Amino acid sequence: MSFKPISDIGEFGLIDRIASITAPTLETTPGITEGIGDDCAVYEISRSMVQVTTTDLLVEHVHFDLLTTPLHHLGSKAISVNVSDICAMNAKPRYALVSIAIPSKTSVDLVETLYRGMSETSRIYGLAIAGGDTSLCPGAMVISVTVAGDIEKENITYRKGAEPGDMICVSGTLGGAAAGLRVLMREKSVMMEHIRHGETYDKDVMSNLSDYDDAIRQQLLPSARMDIIGFFEKENIVPTSMIDISDGLASDLAHICKRSGVGAQIEESRIPILSQTRHIADEFQEDAMNYALTGGEDYQLLFTLKPENFSAISSHPDISVIGKITPKDDGLLLRDIYGMTVDIQSLSGFDHFSG
Amino acid sequence: MSFKPISDIGEFGLIDRIASITAPTLETTPGITEGIGDDCAVYEISRSMVQVTTTDLLVEHVHFDLLTTPLHHLGSKAISVNVSDICAMNAKPRYALVSIAIPSKTSVDLVETLYRGMSETSRIYGLAIAGGDTSLCPGAMVISVTVAGDIEKENITYRKGAEPGDMICVSGTLGGAAAGLRVLMREKSVMMEHIRHGETYDKDVMSNLSDYDDAIRQQLLPSARMDIIGFFEKENIVPTSMIDISDGLASDLAHICKRSGVGAQIEESRIPILSQTRHIADEFQEDAMNYALTGGEDYQLLFTLKPENFSAISSHPDISVIGKITPKDDGLLLRDIYGMTVDIQSLSGFDHFSG
Repeated sequence: MSFKPISDIGEFGLIDRIASITAPTLETTPGITEGIGDDCAVYEISRSMVQVTTTDLLVEHVHFDLLTTPLHHLGSKAISVNVSDICAMNAKPRYALVSIAIPSKTSVDLVETLYRGMSETSRIYGLAIAGGDTSLCPGAMVISVTVAGDIEKENITYRKGAEPGDMICVSGTLGGAAAGLRVLMREKSVMMEHIRHGETYDKDVMSNLSDYDDAIRQQLLPSARMDIIGFFEKENIVPTSMIDISDGLASDLAHICKRSGVGAQIEESRIPILSQTRHIADEFQEDAMNYALTGGEDYQLLFTLKPENFSAISSHPDISVIGKITPKDDGLLLRDIYGMTVDIQSLSGFDHFSG
Repeated sequence: MSFKPISDIGEFGLIDRIASITAPTLETTPGITEGIGDDCAVYEISRSMVQVTTTDLLVEHVHFDLLTTPLHHLGSKAISVNVSDICAMNAKPRYALVSIAIPSKTSVDLVETLYRGMSETSRIYGLAIAGGDTSLCPGAMVISVTVAGDIEKENITYRKGAEPGDMICVSGTLGGAAAGLRVLMREKSVMMEHIRHGETYDKDVMSNLSDYDDAIRQQLLPSARMDIIGFFEKENIVPTSMIDISDGLASDLAHICKRSGVGAQIEESRIPILSQTRHIADEFQEDAMNYALTGGEDYQLLFTLKPENFSAISSHPDISVIGKITPKDDGLLLRDIYGMTVDIQSLSGFDHFSG
């Protein structure tokens, strides 16, 4: 019995160990075509359809802070981040199970507000909240959401499948969620400072946040890109690989490359970043490109397409081609605006367990 | 905005409010035939098959105590309690998603032991652990397990469906888990007393626990009764209603009666209780019948059958007929060994939120 703490091996080290312990269970059930290692587990429910399932655990003080997160938004985000994983398999969400653990002194109204946020957002996605569990948790609120979706077997998209020559594409803009988080954390310290000095916190200061509205919205109210999945269906496009950007562009592109056995080169000049995100980064004397590469939580789709799909997507106002898949030995490179290439293999996303 | 805490309305009050907030989402997805209100959510995956899904959140200090629970057993129990819900729908488990949140200083070995317990038990049930999530949680360990199973549409069994004249049956014995918990809690206080006085805790004292082994096993290592589901299949029996006993016989029978719109009368003399459970209750100057009625966590199956199934089950060594379903107005009665009837409607199971 050694006493190596989880923090020594990090989240991905832990997941690798769990995957090897649970691997023998996969032999018991025919029809599980993908286990740990993609955005969703994949299970054949009929000859032509597969079910995809994902689950996320959100812990207060780790994933969210009730001081800066309205509960209605939190409920909405808890649903959206799971639906985003369903979209990453090119599938449509069908139903969710939602569990919460809360301190017994939590107000009934707060819990109702949380579920109203979940319920309203679920209706937008066509997702039924079909069950769940409730429990006491003395120290913190914990939310666990599981979402099941489905897709025709021939149209499912994995992280694996990208091939050299494929275009690398991304939906929406990147780095906004990280920028929004910076602003909210600064706002929180102002609030805490007021409290420490016994002053009442003036809610009017919130009006000054209008310059940051897009970034804050991307942090608090991300949308799953079901519209992009609908666009693929309409245009008869099946991406060769796909993932949703939850850890940051560098880390999530690395997941695609690792699972597909390929390399990638992306162009700094083509990475879509809102000017508001750049302004916020400037204010904090940070680099907006870093927010995009390692900030995470943007919940945009990162996918690869055969070059022949270019004309179909070129007119889409919210899809950017940011680079191309290369042979594995070429590594994972970012070409900056001066034409220099940097290795971004080692830029990983945020790891709650490390440090 | 009122400030009524959850503890004022209790767990079932909270579930009712959540169900009414999330009800509109059920309209978005055709094929959800059962939402909150049974052991599992039910979703039609093909013309002849339905999928049943359940989820359970286990919180340290609320549902388990690491001082008295070996992690291997905890992993096993986390799987079994969910598979038990699948059995309660007369279905077979197929795959699970498992999430854990743990303090970052948790030892890698402990987490591996937990997952080995889950993995070994899952293999026994033919259940694949197909995915999940890992997260940091500073104060306590939280485990969230979701299990999906399936069953032919014509054989699914709900809580609703019991009719006057049906036999009320139960598998195995009741009250053992509650008795085991009493013994473990006493053991824990002995341990804490030793620690308080700076003495080393002598592990040999555990050998004295052999008189309590069945009860402790029922508390720490409950089994989902898949054998009973297999027996039903072999005998072509479809119960008219079923639930697993997680809250206690009184509360779980009340769930069947409420959902089926019926009453029930059970016979004290027919409720199966191990003599070890009675000895433990005597030691604690408590009533073993109370353990069975309100203790919970036995994870036995409580089900109702048409009288014509009597001959098929009468030879089964581990099924007891404990009473019969009556018209709704007759209420929920226990006839004691002297022939007196007591109303057990108001005897509810344990509620973490109340008090």
